[in-house]
Amino acid sequence: MRTSIATVCLSGSLTEKLRACAAAGFDGVEIFEPDLVAAIQSPEEIRALAERLGLSLDLYQPFRDAEGVTEQVMATNLRRAEAKFRLMNRLGIDLMLVCSNVATASLDSDEVSADQLGRLSDLAATYGIRLAYEALAWGRYVSDYRRAWHIVRRADRANLGVCLDSFHILSRGHDPAAIENIPADKIFFLQLADAPSLSMDVLSWSRHHRLFPGEGSWDLGAFVGHVAAAGYTGPLSLEVFNDTFRQTDPIRTAAHARRSLAWVADQAARWLERADGDRTGGPTSLPRLTDAASPTGVDFVEIKAENTGALEELLGRLDFGFRGRHRTKPVTLWSAGEARVILNEQRARDQVPHLAAVGFVVPEAKAALARAGELGANPVHRRTYAGEVELSAVRAPDGTEIFLDEPSATERGWMAEFEHGEPGSECLITGVDHVNLVQPWQDFDEAVLFYTSVLGLTAAPSTEVAGPRGLVRSQVMRTCDGSVRLPLNVAPAILDHAVLPQHIAFSCTDVAALAERARSQGLPFLPVPGNYYEDLAARYDLSSDSIERLRGLNLLYDRDGSGEFVHFYTGTIGEVFLEFVQRRGGYDGYGAGNAPVRLAAQGG
Amino acid sequence: MRTSIATVCLSGSLTEKLRACAAAGFDGVEIFEPDLVAAIQSPEEIRALAERLGLSLDLYQPFRDAEGVTEQVMATNLRRAEAKFRLMNRLGIDLMLVCSNVATASLDSDEVSADQLGRLSDLAATYGIRLAYEALAWGRYVSDYRRAWHIVRRADRANLGVCLDSFHILSRGHDPAAIENIPADKIFFLQLADAPSLSMDVLSWSRHHRLFPGEGSWDLGAFVGHVAAAGYTGPLSLEVFNDTFRQTDPIRTAAHARRSLAWVADQAARWLERADGDRTGGPTSLPRLTDAASPTGVDFVEIKAENTGALEELLGRLDFGFRGRHRTKPVTLWSAGEARVILNEQRARDQVPHLAAVGFVVPEAKAALARAGELGANPVHRRTYAGEVELSAVRAPDGTEIFLDEPSATERGWMAEFEHGEPGSECLITGVDHVNLVQPWQDFDEAVLFYTSVLGLTAAPSTEVAGPRGLVRSQVMRTCDGSVRLPLNVAPAILDHAVLPQHIAFSCTDVAALAERARSQGLPFLPVPGNYYEDLAARYDLSSDSIERLRGLNLLYDRDGSGEFVHFYTGTIGEVFLEFVQRRGGYDGYGAGNAPVRLAAQGG
Repeated sequence: MRTSIATVCLSGSLTEKLRACAAAGFDGVEIFEPDLVAAIQSPEEIRALAERLGLSLDLYQPFRDAEGVTEQVMATNLRRAEAKFRLMNRLGIDLMLVCSNVATASLDSDEVSADQLGRLSDLAATYGIRLAYEALAWGRYVSDYRRAWHIVRRADRANLGVCLDSFHILSRGHDPAAIENIPADKIFFLQLADAPSLSMDVLSWSRHHRLFPGEGSWDLGAFVGHVAAAGYTGPLSLEVFNDTFRQTDPIRTAAHARRSLAWVADQAARWLERADGDRTGGPTSLPRLTDAASPTGVDFVEIKAENTGALEELLGRLDFGFRGRHRTKPVTLWSAGEARVILNEQRARDQVPHLAAVGFVVPEAKAALARAGELGANPVHRRTYAGEVELSAVRAPDGTEIFLDEPSATERGWMAEFEHGEPGSECLITGVDHVNLVQPWQDFDEAVLFYTSVLGLTAAPSTEVAGPRGLVRSQVMRTCDGSVRLPLNVAPAILDHAVLPQHIAFSCTDVAALAERARSQGLPFLPVPGNYYEDLAARYDLSSDSIERLRGLNLLYDRDGSGEFVHFYTGTIGEVFLEFVQRRGGYDGYGAGNAPVRLAAQGG
Repeated sequence: MRTSIATVCLSGSLTEKLRACAAAGFDGVEIFEPDLVAAIQSPEEIRALAERLGLSLDLYQPFRDAEGVTEQVMATNLRRAEAKFRLMNRLGIDLMLVCSNVATASLDSDEVSADQLGRLSDLAATYGIRLAYEALAWGRYVSDYRRAWHIVRRADRANLGVCLDSFHILSRGHDPAAIENIPADKIFFLQLADAPSLSMDVLSWSRHHRLFPGEGSWDLGAFVGHVAAAGYTGPLSLEVFNDTFRQTDPIRTAAHARRSLAWVADQAARWLERADGDRTGGPTSLPRLTDAASPTGVDFVEIKAENTGALEELLGRLDFGFRGRHRTKPVTLWSAGEARVILNEQRARDQVPHLAAVGFVVPEAKAALARAGELGANPVHRRTYAGEVELSAVRAPDGTEIFLDEPSATERGWMAEFEHGEPGSECLITGVDHVNLVQPWQDFDEAVLFYTSVLGLTAAPSTEVAGPRGLVRSQVMRTCDGSVRLPLNVAPAILDHAVLPQHIAFSCTDVAALAERARSQGLPFLPVPGNYYEDLAARYDLSSDSIERLRGLNLLYDRDGSGEFVHFYTGTIGEVFLEFVQRRGGYDGYGAGNAPVRLAAQGG
């Protein structure tokens, strides 16, 4: 499988973009015309640079408003195209993207369009150039790939084919299955983009909100599967217009883009396998990733700080037991039920308490790590000493270290390194319910792809919560069974994301009893306003006794169709606070309705 | 006219919001329920604070999903409402907003809705409370204010009326004229919001993109005019859900909001005057602003820096003549035609060159200043010395000082303070074509309102331009005749706005001759890539001689239906560069198509 990417996906100058694409391991690029026009380098220099970097120049794009026009406009178009064909010869590009006409089309006729594209192709042929005709979702007359293919077939030129773009097809809700009816040698190019589900005009949606595959709401595995089933063996290319990626470091965005192609190829290969019954043969050139089962739970969370004393005190008031001190490092282990918290003061000078690492239990650590490597995840290197267990970790986009640890039959291997602790005892806490990671806005989409592709988590629908300093966007990444839940919160742009604290939520068998015990220990709860409880009484038919009990313990309450949720928060220490939750019945949420109250209490 | 604002418009805690509203001079507020629920203060404390601040609590909102429901749900709703009525009694609020049902409506019947709202009103009456029923644009069955009024009329309760919200009416394209058919005593409340013209689902549009009147695309003067013509004399209130205002300083946002009401009241009063022929009498309680004609031109621009030497050199190479040194300050004046540039080194320690002030020619400076004062514009105080002309200025949202200067019959008064200059001579530059001010993204909407209300400029449709570090949004504020043009550019969020330079564009009679002269003087032009000229040749039927002449002088070219535009840029000095433009025929743009080339050259 060859990989490609349009230069418009990245920030920077054209030469910066080319270097970033090469560094990320792309095989080729699409040259987006405005990037070339604005480049100070000559076409020959760009060609030579790409050659040195080992990048093929796969496509020149776009050529607009070519067909469906009067003969007078057609004459101008041929002149305009010929200048671009000459330029393409200098660049060494033999394929041009021709978009369906938006601005100048005046004739809604397949006959006219086929005739005009045919003549354009004949002119292109004299320069050794092929044309890939694409139906834009907002094309004046041609906005459906099936009609574009119909016109191409009618024009019947060897150097004229179609370009398929997942955005233009899926945004209009067109069924991609008919792609399989197009002969493979007529699919000249394939452009991929994902997108969030939005209800807005398709042009704005396309220009601002495209995402890399795996970050939006479309089934791109199936889409690529249909194209592969048609027999297409050309490059998988990305064309993503996105306001964020236009601003962020191109080196990082390119790596992130490359990860999305590795993921989507694997998804497509799986889709083809599943659909195999219907098909005979079909190409198998789509590379698979190592199969790795999703995590089955959270093994530990690590909080790092120059001084973890305040956290030790907090945990001590909350049913956590001291499980020992690491035999070689200034690190302590605390646990309660299946919840394990590591407090780490190693190399933490001047650092306030923050969530540094999350350990996940995976069935096969080796496979999970191999898969993460294939997806270009950055490995984490921690110094270990002789006899210590070597844990494997990769770094998430926000810098959090993600450990991948196998369950051992008895106690976890790494726990043996902690000495002089107390034995665990019965307690009200059972484990980690969810870990809430705050994301800088520019890392959010990358994080969604990271957790989707590396850990196999699924993105739940995102919500927005009003805080006193702006809207906080929250998207939960989780396993189907809910054994791993990672809500990702995005801070308002004006806030430094570090201002919004992260948190770990622990599940309990009896959150009220835990709160009562903690209160008697002097726990600093996050205070909940009295108005909240009055509103609760208005909204739900809870007895006044229940309300008073909730109020007395600073407990918050939520309910959905299938159950109830009771929870409380501690105050914030550094950049971290803790939450304790009890799910009753089939409640599957996170008390989002209470989040504004929490944010107000934290921001006040 | 009484003024009010919903607490949801502002960031911060409820008490911060109340203080900001009082500081901005609002008469009252709408209490947005989630703000109260999240407040740590009791309802009594909030009531007492508002009383001390001199703010009336005008409305409690919203009560959702009240009507069109089964009797079982209705029983819950009455219980829920009664808890809120009790709360309102404690707050001392006698008016509640009841939104048309979105979530629980199951009966699409005016009869049922009228009956249920009637019973809710009867219950409210026992608490001395009135209900204002509002059709949400996305209400399940009731989404048109005319239907809401029909239901209210049918329910026929003294304490039940309608609430009109410009967003819900104008977003659906409903004609506001029928508001005049509603008896004044049945319009219980009026909420105002403007909005940009967007094509997206109305709920997201409402939740994220509302604007204060004067910042969007609707004619709110006419809207308020219709409501006033109906005889409404209650408060004009603002309800603006906006992602930006949720994040920004509430003191500043409240002042900005208050300005929008002063402006919209004036617009409505004018609208009523114009529509007077159709009406008899009608209320005249809408306060007018002082009439002040829009500026007729740019008097001067001022660039400030610790050292303006590089700018002196630049101006000297570009037909500008030295017109003297200020007799008491380290300030020099340069001019060419009607373009005047002041270079100011006073109190500019460590400041790189930046655009500090723009002087506008206004027919009556006194009236313009009075109007600015009525709109809450911050006056600028500069030290003047005996015998010096006192210039009047206000500060724009981005900090730029805006001077309002009358034309004198002969030379401008303030120019006499500059001594030992050379006399002006014939030159190719005629004046200032436009001044481009870069706005921090959070100040943009406020800037649009400022220039609309204070200077009477009009917002042209906004455009977006791709730069190497993100999309730059550009909106031109201008007079109808184009004698004053202020493009406002908004930098991508990730960039400090100061990274995007501002510029002054000067109009010329012969931009090619000016460029040639400047080149012979050694001017540092902004270099234009060769690829740009090749693209130009492909796009337009310009002779190769013309193209070569453009290329030789680093000139850029644009064309629209009515004329041509030729221009060039200097390099950037500090945060400023200069542009020189020549408009031919009726060309009315700014060469936006060339902006990506400029941004790339500046960012590379």
